[in-house]
Amino acid sequence: MQRSPLALPFPSLAPIAGVRIGTASVPYKQWTRDCVTLIELAEGTAVAGVTTRSQCPSPEVELCRAKLPGGRARGLVVNAGNSNAFTGLSGRQAAEAQAARVAERLGCDPAAVFSASTGVIGVPLPVDLALAGVDQAHARLGQADWLAATHAIGTTDTFPKAATTSAIVGGTRVTLVGIIKGSGMIAPDMATMLGFIFSDARISPALWQQMLAAAVGPSFNSITVDSDTSTSDTVLAFATGAAGHAELTSMDDPGADALAAALADLCRQLALLVVRDGEGASKLIEVNVSGAVSDASAKRVALSIANSPLVKTAIAGGDANWGRVVMAVGKAGEPADRDRLSIRFGDTLVAQQGAVVPGYDEAPVAAHLAGQEIRITADLGLGPGRGRVWTCDLTHGYISINADYRS
Amino acid sequence: MQRSPLALPFPSLAPIAGVRIGTASVPYKQWTRDCVTLIELAEGTAVAGVTTRSQCPSPEVELCRAKLPGGRARGLVVNAGNSNAFTGLSGRQAAEAQAARVAERLGCDPAAVFSASTGVIGVPLPVDLALAGVDQAHARLGQADWLAATHAIGTTDTFPKAATTSAIVGGTRVTLVGIIKGSGMIAPDMATMLGFIFSDARISPALWQQMLAAAVGPSFNSITVDSDTSTSDTVLAFATGAAGHAELTSMDDPGADALAAALADLCRQLALLVVRDGEGASKLIEVNVSGAVSDASAKRVALSIANSPLVKTAIAGGDANWGRVVMAVGKAGEPADRDRLSIRFGDTLVAQQGAVVPGYDEAPVAAHLAGQEIRITADLGLGPGRGRVWTCDLTHGYISINADYRS
Repeated sequence: MQRSPLALPFPSLAPIAGVRIGTASVPYKQWTRDCVTLIELAEGTAVAGVTTRSQCPSPEVELCRAKLPGGRARGLVVNAGNSNAFTGLSGRQAAEAQAARVAERLGCDPAAVFSASTGVIGVPLPVDLALAGVDQAHARLGQADWLAATHAIGTTDTFPKAATTSAIVGGTRVTLVGIIKGSGMIAPDMATMLGFIFSDARISPALWQQMLAAAVGPSFNSITVDSDTSTSDTVLAFATGAAGHAELTSMDDPGADALAAALADLCRQLALLVVRDGEGASKLIEVNVSGAVSDASAKRVALSIANSPLVKTAIAGGDANWGRVVMAVGKAGEPADRDRLSIRFGDTLVAQQGAVVPGYDEAPVAAHLAGQEIRITADLGLGPGRGRVWTCDLTHGYISINADYRS
Repeated sequence: MQRSPLALPFPSLAPIAGVRIGTASVPYKQWTRDCVTLIELAEGTAVAGVTTRSQCPSPEVELCRAKLPGGRARGLVVNAGNSNAFTGLSGRQAAEAQAARVAERLGCDPAAVFSASTGVIGVPLPVDLALAGVDQAHARLGQADWLAATHAIGTTDTFPKAATTSAIVGGTRVTLVGIIKGSGMIAPDMATMLGFIFSDARISPALWQQMLAAAVGPSFNSITVDSDTSTSDTVLAFATGAAGHAELTSMDDPGADALAAALADLCRQLALLVVRDGEGASKLIEVNVSGAVSDASAKRVALSIANSPLVKTAIAGGDANWGRVVMAVGKAGEPADRDRLSIRFGDTLVAQQGAVVPGYDEAPVAAHLAGQEIRITADLGLGPGRGRVWTCDLTHGYISINADYRS
């Protein structure tokens, strides 16, 4: 798979105290690369998480949902190449058996072991391989770094995606590292997107969950590649507490706002990396909608634009086809008035009050569209509502990748 | 543009008494073919219509909406190559001027002149060309046949699309002919789809509208090519009354049910022709959903499957990727239970009760997917709700057509 032209270099990432990584190679697919990732987390690690809203989630997602209220994690196992979704009882049993093996190896309660799987839907996770992967990865704990883990959780990803931020909490610098995979079947809410965030912050599970829940709206739930929502989407955040500051339990605690901001920034960085690896993407598109009757309405209009195949193909072709933006605003089902609508590409006002601007000069728009980062702005002229989403263009690459993915 | 592999031959169509057609060539685009169609309708013709639900409709759509309550039509003018949508006051004035010219030529009230335009959005209809087109087409009234009109209303269509049905009303055979254009920006409710239906039936405008409104649900509002809804979608139905039977005014009148059935059948045929010309389509896909909690829920799930880029690319690749169907069911936001869901491709049960069927044999599925007409059936196992929609696969052809349509 050719590396996305929108790829960013892998960042320099510090280790997080209390986190040990091992990876393993088992033949879920005809891959030679590692595809099982085991992460050991220090005693007392707080966990927070959000999962897909699909009505047909994978057993791993169901297990995460069941375990998250416990608030504590000791282990994470990730399988790439097989999503184990829609595999009935045998899939559920395989996921439980693998988590049990992790618990056995780490000497912890299976309720503190989280799992995630990504890949083909409908093929039960082969339990023997899943267990062998745990054993092999456990034997190699501490030998893998963030880059190795990022590679091992990937599927159709064309580049490894990770980010880092930090915050000062109680005079101590805490670090956040996030790794993520996903490049297709990406839409709010969550996509075939697995994201794992690690920090040495010391924080109560309830507050950590509150921070994560606030962070996902303008990040993971504001991106779309193809409007398709996966059965397996999962973002888990782990805080080992190794930084040693006083435990944060409330947003009023000193440093809580800094940590929340760092987490939100990390989530936004990670989400944008997923769009940058959108299947077949050649351009990153930011859609801003203002002037809507509410923020929720603005976001729905922005998603209508971002999910429109005709808008996305126009951008792919470098075509300043703002008429398709009008179409997408019109079809969103949200309050809109054609004669108050204005549209910009980049910084150039293209249309306002129901028509193209007088003396419209396409040259600066064409120059903007020739770049890799495209901004489309629609102001509805009705109210104070604002929303922003990110997507990518729709190209031949998307078809090539998806018309023969499973075979 | 290469003819769709799903194209059907143009049918043999009888003239409809009370309908005269003329076409004209004016340079809305660099086309040499005719692109203005004028249709004269006999005195007393009843008209019914449905238009896009877009919040940003074209002035032609607004004019149709304003005139439909009058119930009578004497003329129809159709422009191809320029949709006149989102063109502000000048577009509105151009549409009004063109309708006025038609009224002048036909000697009728402008309120009885209907118009529709299709093509690029955002470029005002050049009023001089629009008037010249009317004059030229008027001079040629009676010289064009259904095939000529079908060609003249087309844009990216790769084959001319028309159908015919008939019914016995009061001992008289009445004929229905429909012509339609559209191949992209197609989604419920209405698409860049212009459809015109003509009959010699004698019927009150109110009953004709009631019949059309009933017919569009399982036809035009059950197809999707790319989930994009046009600003210009219009279906108009004209009944000249020339067949001479007693006027139908109620569904209880003899023959009313036969006419309604013939109209519904015609609409379904026309809608399917649009899907057969879906941009880049290589396969026609029928999606049936049963076992939903309601018919409305079933249709929403069916549309979620039919609009999924991942399902559509899988079918393009001949890939029996039922996992993507599970994904699309799950993302629909409708009640669904993974463990009661069953899925068929063609006649073959692939998955049930949350997992692939024991001993699943992909061979008959692969054979079905190698054909041109694909059936996907999902039974949700929850209730009596049923729904059916049609779509086409998503191929490189769609990208090629839409990444350079405007330029």
